[in-house]
Amino acid sequence: MSAFLLLNGPNLNLLGTREPGVYGATTLADVETQCRATAQRLGFGLESFQSNHEGALIDRIHDAGRRHQAGEIAGVVFNPGALTHTSIALFDAIGGVKPLPVIEVHISNVHAREAFRHHSYISPAAAGIVVGFGTDGYTLALEGLARKIAAGRA
Amino acid sequence: MSAFLLLNGPNLNLLGTREPGVYGATTLADVETQCRATAQRLGFGLESFQSNHEGALIDRIHDAGRRHQAGEIAGVVFNPGALTHTSIALFDAIGGVKPLPVIEVHISNVHAREAFRHHSYISPAAAGIVVGFGTDGYTLALEGLARKIAAGRA
Amino acid sequence: MSAFLLLNGPNLNLLGTREPGVYGATTLADVETQCRATAQRLGFGLESFQSNHEGALIDRIHDAGRRHQAGEIAGVVFNPGALTHTSIALFDAIGGVKPLPVIEVHISNVHAREAFRHHSYISPAAAGIVVGFGTDGYTLALEGLARKIAAGRA
Amino acid sequence: MSAFLLLNGPNLNLLGTREPGVYGATTLADVETQCRATAQRLGFGLESFQSNHEGALIDRIHDAGRRHQAGEIAGVVFNPGALTHTSIALFDAIGGVKPLPVIEVHISNVHAREAFRHHSYISPAAAGIVVGFGTDGYTLALEGLARKIAAGRA
Amino acid sequence: MSAFLLLNGPNLNLLGTREPGVYGATTLADVETQCRATAQRLGFGLESFQSNHEGALIDRIHDAGRRHQAGEIAGVVFNPGALTHTSIALFDAIGGVKPLPVIEVHISNVHAREAFRHHSYISPAAAGIVVGFGTDGYTLALEGLARKIAAGRA
Amino acid sequence: MSAFLLLNGPNLNLLGTREPGVYGATTLADVETQCRATAQRLGFGLESFQSNHEGALIDRIHDAGRRHQAGEIAGVVFNPGALTHTSIALFDAIGGVKPLPVIEVHISNVHAREAFRHHSYISPAAAGIVVGFGTDGYTLALEGLARKIAAGRA
Amino acid sequence: MSAFLLLNGPNLNLLGTREPGVYGATTLADVETQCRATAQRLGFGLESFQSNHEGALIDRIHDAGRRHQAGEIAGVVFNPGALTHTSIALFDAIGGVKPLPVIEVHISNVHAREAFRHHSYISPAAAGIVVGFGTDGYTLALEGLARKIAAGRA
Amino acid sequence: MSAFLLLNGPNLNLLGTREPGVYGATTLADVETQCRATAQRLGFGLESFQSNHEGALIDRIHDAGRRHQAGEIAGVVFNPGALTHTSIALFDAIGGVKPLPVIEVHISNVHAREAFRHHSYISPAAAGIVVGFGTDGYTLALEGLARKIAAGRA
Amino acid sequence: MSAFLLLNGPNLNLLGTREPGVYGATTLADVETQCRATAQRLGFGLESFQSNHEGALIDRIHDAGRRHQAGEIAGVVFNPGALTHTSIALFDAIGGVKPLPVIEVHISNVHAREAFRHHSYISPAAAGIVVGFGTDGYTLALEGLARKIAAGRA
Amino acid sequence: MSAFLLLNGPNLNLLGTREPGVYGATTLADVETQCRATAQRLGFGLESFQSNHEGALIDRIHDAGRRHQAGEIAGVVFNPGALTHTSIALFDAIGGVKPLPVIEVHISNVHAREAFRHHSYISPAAAGIVVGFGTDGYTLALEGLARKIAAGRA
Amino acid sequence: MSAFLLLNGPNLNLLGTREPGVYGATTLADVETQCRATAQRLGFGLESFQSNHEGALIDRIHDAGRRHQAGEIAGVVFNPGALTHTSIALFDAIGGVKPLPVIEVHISNVHAREAFRHHSYISPAAAGIVVGFGTDGYTLALEGLARKIAAGRA
Amino acid sequence: MSAFLLLNGPNLNLLGTREPGVYGATTLADVETQCRATAQRLGFGLESFQSNHEGALIDRIHDAGRRHQAGEIAGVVFNPGALTHTSIALFDAIGGVKPLPVIEVHISNVHAREAFRHHSYISPAAAGIVVGFGTDGYTLALEGLARKIAAGRA
Repeated sequence: MSAFLLLNGPNLNLLGTREPGVYGATTLADVETQCRATAQRLGFGLESFQSNHEGALIDRIHDAGRRHQAGEIAGVVFNPGALTHTSIALFDAIGGVKPLPVIEVHISNVHAREAFRHHSYISPAAAGIVVGFGTDGYTLALEGLARKIAAGRA
Repeated sequence: MSAFLLLNGPNLNLLGTREPGVYGATTLADVETQCRATAQRLGFGLESFQSNHEGALIDRIHDAGRRHQAGEIAGVVFNPGALTHTSIALFDAIGGVKPLPVIEVHISNVHAREAFRHHSYISPAAAGIVVGFGTDGYTLALEGLARKIAAGRA
Repeated sequence: MSAFLLLNGPNLNLLGTREPGVYGATTLADVETQCRATAQRLGFGLESFQSNHEGALIDRIHDAGRRHQAGEIAGVVFNPGALTHTSIALFDAIGGVKPLPVIEVHISNVHAREAFRHHSYISPAAAGIVVGFGTDGYTLALEGLARKIAAGRA
Repeated sequence: MSAFLLLNGPNLNLLGTREPGVYGATTLADVETQCRATAQRLGFGLESFQSNHEGALIDRIHDAGRRHQAGEIAGVVFNPGALTHTSIALFDAIGGVKPLPVIEVHISNVHAREAFRHHSYISPAAAGIVVGFGTDGYTLALEGLARKIAAGRA
Repeated sequence: MSAFLLLNGPNLNLLGTREPGVYGATTLADVETQCRATAQRLGFGLESFQSNHEGALIDRIHDAGRRHQAGEIAGVVFNPGALTHTSIALFDAIGGVKPLPVIEVHISNVHAREAFRHHSYISPAAAGIVVGFGTDGYTLALEGLARKIAAGRA
Repeated sequence: MSAFLLLNGPNLNLLGTREPGVYGATTLADVETQCRATAQRLGFGLESFQSNHEGALIDRIHDAGRRHQAGEIAGVVFNPGALTHTSIALFDAIGGVKPLPVIEVHISNVHAREAFRHHSYISPAAAGIVVGFGTDGYTLALEGLARKIAAGRA
Repeated sequence: MSAFLLLNGPNLNLLGTREPGVYGATTLADVETQCRATAQRLGFGLESFQSNHEGALIDRIHDAGRRHQAGEIAGVVFNPGALTHTSIALFDAIGGVKPLPVIEVHISNVHAREAFRHHSYISPAAAGIVVGFGTDGYTLALEGLARKIAAGRA
Repeated sequence: MSAFLLLNGPNLNLLGTREPGVYGATTLADVETQCRATAQRLGFGLESFQSNHEGALIDRIHDAGRRHQAGEIAGVVFNPGALTHTSIALFDAIGGVKPLPVIEVHISNVHAREAFRHHSYISPAAAGIVVGFGTDGYTLALEGLARKIAAGRA
Repeated sequence: MSAFLLLNGPNLNLLGTREPGVYGATTLADVETQCRATAQRLGFGLESFQSNHEGALIDRIHDAGRRHQAGEIAGVVFNPGALTHTSIALFDAIGGVKPLPVIEVHISNVHAREAFRHHSYISPAAAGIVVGFGTDGYTLALEGLARKIAAGRA
Repeated sequence: MSAFLLLNGPNLNLLGTREPGVYGATTLADVETQCRATAQRLGFGLESFQSNHEGALIDRIHDAGRRHQAGEIAGVVFNPGALTHTSIALFDAIGGVKPLPVIEVHISNVHAREAFRHHSYISPAAAGIVVGFGTDGYTLALEGLARKIAAGRA
Repeated sequence: MSAFLLLNGPNLNLLGTREPGVYGATTLADVETQCRATAQRLGFGLESFQSNHEGALIDRIHDAGRRHQAGEIAGVVFNPGALTHTSIALFDAIGGVKPLPVIEVHISNVHAREAFRHHSYISPAAAGIVVGFGTDGYTLALEGLARKIAAGRA
Repeated sequence: MSAFLLLNGPNLNLLGTREPGVYGATTLADVETQCRATAQRLGFGLESFQSNHEGALIDRIHDAGRRHQAGEIAGVVFNPGALTHTSIALFDAIGGVKPLPVIEVHISNVHAREAFRHHSYISPAAAGIVVGFGTDGYTLALEGLARKIAAGRA
C-alpha cells in the first residue's frame, strides 16, 4: 500500500504546547493520529517526520522522491514552518523529485501575520496550498492530494 | 436550513470554455453542481453568484453579512479572480461583515504565475485559503468551512 | 438654489451598523440628515448618493460636472472608501469635471491604519481634505467648501 | 460582414468636452463616425461601446470573444482609460477570449504624464499598441488590425 | 478658561509675505486674529507660537501636555511645515503628551506638490487632519477640535 | 519634396535574418521598400539610416533637426532597438531638435518580453508610439505622422 | 541552582583564532571561562553550546524552554552569528519558548559592516541587545539579564 | 577625575512621567542618580545633559570632544531618542570628535516597534550599543564603556 | 555696499581641527578670511554665520531674504553640512526668500562617500553647486555668484 | 601531497539522476572521478564531500581551513547549490578560513534562471567563479585554482 | 606649455542653438573662446573636443591620460551630457587615467530637472563638480582646477 | 581552421598599464599571445579585437555570427568591461547571432567591487562565465569553450 508522507519543519514539534492562541491546542502527535485515520479512509498509509534541520528535511524529500518512483510514497503534505520564507534549497529539493506531488500547509493564516511571512519559496513548486484551517488543514490537504491522484493530476 | 454562498469574480464565467490548460475543462455550472452536492452532504444549502462587477460582488457580500446574522448564510467560498490582487474594497467588505467566514479559493497555483498574482488583498481577511487544487478547491473549501463551523471556529 | 453633493463609496452603506470601534455608531442616514441641516444653514441644498460600484460613482461625478456648469451643483463632499487607494479612474473623473470643487473626507485616521491606506489617488485632485474627525468630518468639509465658494476660490 | 468593436473605458465619454489641451476637441461621437468610415473602407462594420464600469467592459469583451468564434467580431480597438493601469481583470478578460485580437489605444502620450500612467496591465495581452496620435490613433489602430487580419497574424 | 494652542513650524512666519501663489496673502498675524475670534466664539482662549526650531516646538508641546493635565490647554492646532515629513521627534512629542489632542493642518494641498511632501510622520499621531483649505484650515481645525471635545472624543 | 527619415538602431540590420519567431522574416531592405512606397503615396520622400552606434544615431538626428528647419525632413520614424531602454542621450537629442516630430516604433510587443524592455527613455519625447504590429508598424507610423503634419500638430 | 545558557551560532568556534582585527584574540573557551565567573558572581550556573547547524541551535532553544519551566535555565545569552540576518526559524524558536528571556549579543559593531548585517530577525524577539563591546558583550549581557530577572521583568 | 557624559535627546525629559508601558516609571533624575553611583563605583564622575534641540546636542558633543583631549571627559553614554533615526548631523558630530567613545543606548527594544525606528544613523559611529534593558541600559553602557577604557580599546 | 553671506551648518565649526584627511587643515576662520578677500576683490562685503542648529540657519536665511530686498545682501554661499541630506525646512527657507541666490558648497566630494550623502534636498533650490574643491570651493562659489549677479541671472 | 577539496551543497547528490535538461546526465560520482583525474594531472590529491546540511558544509570548510595551515588542503572548489543565494554563514565561514582559496562553481547559468538565483552571498569571498560550463566547470575551476597557486596568488 | 582639455559629450554641439531657456544662448564655440582666454590667464593652453560617441570620449580620455604623464595635459573639464547618468565606461576611463584630474561640469541645475538626471556615475571619480552656473561653470571649473594643481592636490 | 574571437570592451586597452592592483601587470598584447598559444594547443586560430565603442563591438559580433555560419569562427571569449552592466544592445547582439557561443570573462571579481558591477546584462545570454581568475580567466574560458564545442553543446 502506498503511503502519504506528513512532513513538518522547524518548531512544529512545539505544536499544541506553545502559543495555542496562534496554533491551537492540538499536538503534533494528535495531527499524526488524525492524518493516519484520514489516510487510511482514503486508502493510503501514513509516514510522519518532523525536524528542525533544513538538511534533514531535504534528505527526507529526496528519499520520498526515490520511493515515489517505487510506488511507495504517493505524495507529501508539508508544513515547512519558517523555512517556507527562506529556503530555496527546499524549493530545489521539491523540484528535484518531480513528479512527486507536495502540498504546502500552514496552520495559521500567514497573510494576516508579519510581512516576512507573506512570501513563500515553496509555493511555486507546490501542487496545492492550504492555509488557515488550523490543524484541519493537514487532513484537507490529504483529501485534496488523494483527489489529484485519483484524477491523474498528480 | 443554512446555506453556503459560492461567490465568483471576474472572468470565472469563462471557466471550462477557455484556457483549459490553466483552469481545466470543468464549467462554472459543473462547479455549482459539484458544490451543491458537497454542501448537501455537509448539511447545507448552496447559493451561487458570479459577476464581473466589483460593486456587485460587494453588494452580495453585504447581503450575505445581513443574512448571516439571520442564520441564513453559514459562510462564503469566494474566488475573487483578478480582483484578488487589486481590490481593497472587497477586503473592506469582508471585514465589514465579520464574523461571516469567507474562504478564498484559487483554481490554479497563482504563485507559479505572474508576479502581480502573488499578492492578495483578500488573504488577510480570509478564514482560510485553498490554492491550486483545480475546481476541487471549491469543495475542499466547503469541507474546511464546515469543519470550522462545527468546531465553533467560524 | 444650488446644492452640495454628498458622495460615498464602497462599504459606507454599512456605516454605523458595523465596526463602530473604527467608524462610530452614526449611520449613513444620520450623516445625510446632519449634512442636510449644515448645507441649509450655509444656504445650499443637499443631494446624497452612495454606491459600491466605481462606475456608478464616476457616472455621478460626470453628472455633477454638467450640473455645476448649470449652477445646480456647487461642490462635492466625497468619501471614496477603499477606492481612494486604487482608483485612477475616479481621479480622472474629478480632473475631467474641473472646476467643480471636490472635498475628500475620511472618517477614521487612515494614516494610523494599514500602509496601503496611506496613499490616495484622489488627494492630488481634491480641493481640500478632512481626515479623522469621525462623521463630523462631512460637516466640516461642507463648511470649508462653503468658505472656498464664498471666497471665490472654488 | 464582420465588424470591429470600438471599446472605450472610464471618462472617455467626456472626450472633446473637457481638457482639450490633453485630449483635443474631437468628441467620442466624432471618433465613432471617423472609425465607422475607416472600418467601411477596410471592409468591416463597426460597433461602439463606452462604459465607466470595469465590469461592463469585461462583459462586452466576453461577448466579443463569443461572437469572434461566430465570425461576427473581427477584432477590438480598446482605449481602457485609467483602467489601463489598475485592472488585471481586463487583462484576464482579453487573455480569456484569445485569439480575438485587441489593439490598445491611448490618445495622449501616457509616458509624458504622471508616473502611474507609465505601466499598463493591458499591454502584454495586446496584439498592438498605438499611443500619442490623438484621436487619429483609433483609425491607425483599425488599419493596423486590418493588416494583421489580412496577414493571418490575428 | 481653557485655551487652544496654535502652533506653527518652520517658515510659517513668512506666511503672506512670500509665495502668495501657494500660501495666499494672509499673514501669520492675520491667522492668529482669525483663530482668536473663532476660539472665543467656541468658548476658548488662544495662544500662538511659531518657531523655526524643532526643539522649541517640542518644548512647547511638552509644556502644553503639562498644562492640559491642569485644564489650561484644551488642544493644539499644529502646522509643522516641512518638519511634517522629517521629524520623528515631533511624532514622539505628541505621543508623549497623550491624551492632549493635536490637529494637523496644511495650508496648501501637500499631495499635489513634490513627492517628499506626501508622507507625514505627524499624521498617525494626529487626532484629525485638515489639508488644502488655505488659512481657513486653521479655523476649520479649531471647530473640529471643539466638536471632538464636546463629544468627549478628545 | 520633403522626406521622412526612417531611423533604426542596434541589431535592426539583422531583421529578417535572425529570430524570425520574434521579428518576422521581413528584412530591413524590405521595410525600406515598403516605407518608400507608403511615403510616396503620402507625398513624401524617404531616407533610411541604420547604425549600431548610439553616437551615429545622435549625429543623424541632429542632421535631421537642421534639415527640418530647411523643410527637407518632415519627420522621423525611429526604432531605437535596445537603446530605447538605456539611452538618455537619444532622448536629449530628440528634445534638442524640437519641433521635429519623432515617432517611436517597436516591431514586437516589448511589454510582453523581459521587464527591462518595459521602460523607454524615448517615449516621453516621442510624438507618437506604435508597438507590436510587426514591420507594418513602420508604415502605420508614417501614416500617423503624415496625419499629424496635415493637422498642423507636428 | 538555575543556570544561564550561553549559545553561539555558526563560525563562533573560530573566535580568537581567525580575523582578530574584527573579533579580537579571545577564544570561545576564554569567553566561556569569563562568563562562568560572571554567572557565578551573579548566583547562576553556566551552560555553553556552539553549533554551525541552525537546527541544532533550535533544538537547544527548545530544550532550554522546557527546562526554563522547570526552573533549570534562567535565561539565554545568544550570539546567532550570520543566522541573525537570515533565520526566521530561530526567531520562531525564541517566540515558541516564551517567557524564557534571550539576550542577543554581537561582538563587533554589525552596523559598521556590510549592509546585509544591519537587519536582525532575532532582535524583535530579544529581551535585550548588546552590540560592539567585543567579547565583554557576553558578560554585560549576563549582568543585564540578571537585573531583568531580579526586577521581575524576565 | 575624568567624567562620563550622560547625554539624552528629544522627549527623554518625559521619562517616567509618560508612557510607562513603553519606558518604565523611572524618571530622568532617577537615571542620573543611578548613573552617578555607577560612575563613581567605576572611578569616574558624571555629567548629564538633556535637550530637545539637535543643535544643542551637537554643541555638547563638540564640547565633550575638546574636553576629552584635556582628559576631562572619558566617554559618552548617549540616548539620541528619535534623532537616532533622522540625524546625520549627530553622526557627523560623533565622527568629528573621535576618538571620544560614544555608547548608544535605547531604553525600549526599538526593533520590536515601528519600522522607522529600526534604522540608526548613530550606530555605525557608536563604540557600543545597548538596547532593550530599560533604564538599566544606561548603567550597563557605563560598565561596558569603563571596560573598553580599561582595555585600552576606547 | 552689498555683502555676501557665508553660511555654514552643523559641524563646520570643527573645520581644520578634525578629520584633515577629509576636509583639509584650513579652519573656518581661515575660510572667512579667504572669502572676505575674495568678496572685496569682487566689490562686496562679507558676513559669516555658522550654527549647529537648523532653526538658527533658517532664521538667518529669512533675515538675508529681507535684507536682499533692501539691497544689503547680494547672495548666499551655503554649506549646509549634514542637513543637506535631511532638511526640507532649509529647502523651504531658500524657496521662501526667492529671488535671493544661494550657492550650495561641499568641501569634500560627497558623491565619493556614503550613499546617504548623495542626495541633497538643497540642490533643487540652489542657484549653483560647487563640490569637491576643498575650501577653495567657497571662493569659487563667490566668484560664480558674482558673475550671475553681473549677468543679471541672480 | 596536498589535496583539493571538492565541496557540493544541497541537492547536488541528485546530479545526473534528475532534471538532466538543466544539469546534464553526469552524476556526482562521475564528477568526482573526472575531478580526481584532473587533480592528479595537476599534481594534487582530491577529497570530495556533499551535504544537504548548511552546518555540515561549514564544519567541513573550517576543517579545510585548519588543514590548509598544515599544507594538507591546497584549495576548495565549491558548488553551494541553493545556499549560494541565502547563506551568509557560508560566506563568513569562507572569510574565517582565509587565505584558503575557494572557487565558486555553478553547473547551469544561474543568471538565465529565476531572479532569486542571480545574487550570490558566496561570490564576494570567492577567489574565482565559474558558471554555466556544465560539469566541466568543476575541472576548469581546478585548473584555474592550480594556476592561482602556481602564480602565488592563492 | 601644459594644456587643459575641454571635453563635451552628446548634444553639447547644439549649445546655444537649441533650448536657450535651459542652456542659454552661448554656443560651444563661444565656450571654447571663453575657456581659452581663462586658460591663458591661468598659464595654460586649451584643447577642445566634443563628440556624440561614448567611445570617442573614452579614446580621448585615454589619450589625455598618456599625455598627462608626458606633462602635456594638466587636467580635464568634462561635461558628459546625458552619458553622466548612464556610462560606467566613462567612470572607468577616468579611473583608468588617474591621477589626471577631471572636473565634472553641468550647465543647468540637473537636480532641478528629471529624476533620472540626479544620479551621476562620473561624480565619484571627479576631482571637483560645478553645477548650475550656465556656461560660466566651465571657467569656474578651469579656475578651480588651476588652484588644485597649484596646491599640489591634483 | 576555425578560430576563436577574443573580444574586449572599453578600457581594456589600458590593461597592464593602469591599476595593476585590480587587474595585474599583464597587458592586452600579453593576453593575446597567451590566448593564441592556448587556442593553437586546442586546435583553433585566434582573432582579437578591442574597442571602446559599443557599436564597434556589436558590428564585430554580427560579423562573427555570419562567419560562424561559414565555420570560420567557432566561438567568442568576451570581456565587455563596463558595458557588461549597461548594454542591452550587446545582449541583443549576442542573442541575434545564436547559436554562436559567447563566454563572458571578467578579470577581477566584480562581485567584490561596487554594487553597480554586480548585475550583468550579458550573463543570461552567455554560454559560460569565468570571473576573478585574473588574465588566466581568458585561457580558462577558451578551454571551457573548446570542451563545449567538443561535447556538441555549443
